[in-house]
Amino acid sequence: MNISHIEHIGIAVTSLEEAIPFYENMLGFKCYAIEEVADQKVKTAFFKVGQTKIELLEATAPESAIAKFIEKNGGRGGIQHVAFAVSDGVGGAIEDVQANGCRVIDEKPRRGAEGLNIAFLHPKSTCGALIELCEKPE
Amino acid sequence: MNISHIEHIGIAVTSLEEAIPFYENMLGFKCYAIEEVADQKVKTAFFKVGQTKIELLEATAPESAIAKFIEKNGGRGGIQHVAFAVSDGVGGAIEDVQANGCRVIDEKPRRGAEGLNIAFLHPKSTCGALIELCEKPE
Repeated sequence: MNISHIEHIGIAVTSLEEAIPFYENMLGFKCYAIEEVADQKVKTAFFKVGQTKIELLEATAPESAIAKFIEKNGGRGGIQHVAFAVSDGVGGAIEDVQANGCRVIDEKPRRGAEGLNIAFLHPKSTCGALIELCEKPE
Repeated sequence: MNISHIEHIGIAVTSLEEAIPFYENMLGFKCYAIEEVADQKVKTAFFKVGQTKIELLEATAPESAIAKFIEKNGGRGGIQHVAFAVSDGVGGAIEDVQANGCRVIDEKPRRGAEGLNIAFLHPKSTCGALIELCEKPE
């Protein structure tokens, strides 16, 4: 597996409507896209910061992973995951890490926000951080 | 305030000894520095990933912010903070955000790992994420 850079950081928020003005007005970023990912029951907002994106995530249903993260976090938002850009295929990367004993949440790549192919590793195997591997589809 | 890129992502771990091999052998990164920051009661390990660094943080005392983060997180590690590189001065950036009503943890820049000038914003003002601003000293 070859990781080229951090594609994005996923930050859970209780309200995009409150969080977007903070990232725009306080930090000076520009929200360039808002997208609902029905599959993951989230609404996302994207900002570009150098080589990496900030992805704000608001839950659209109580069973969303983001709603559960916020509940476990005392009702507050926080940094939920980091996504690494894999330059030689997410499918092969999943096989590689599994062969090395790493548990995964997604055994096959699936479609994420911005049309990326994505897969999550299991935090039980990563020393705690929720790690996503992703790539632009060909 | 002008933010150029994400300088690093801070990931709390219960043991650097366990976590470093995961980041090296599973993800293919190379740990290029291990540093103890006595002031923050942490031991850190650094990896470069594209433009950004991963900073793993292990607590060296129970009153460390990292020990408290892990305790609140059910005894597990996780992504603790994101650090933005400010190109026009952390001191001025602190004044800017305070003037806009943002609470801060550090009212003056202090010295962090790798000799950077750093300051943390207060998560109560950031919609939940722990955000660090940093710069290389002149």
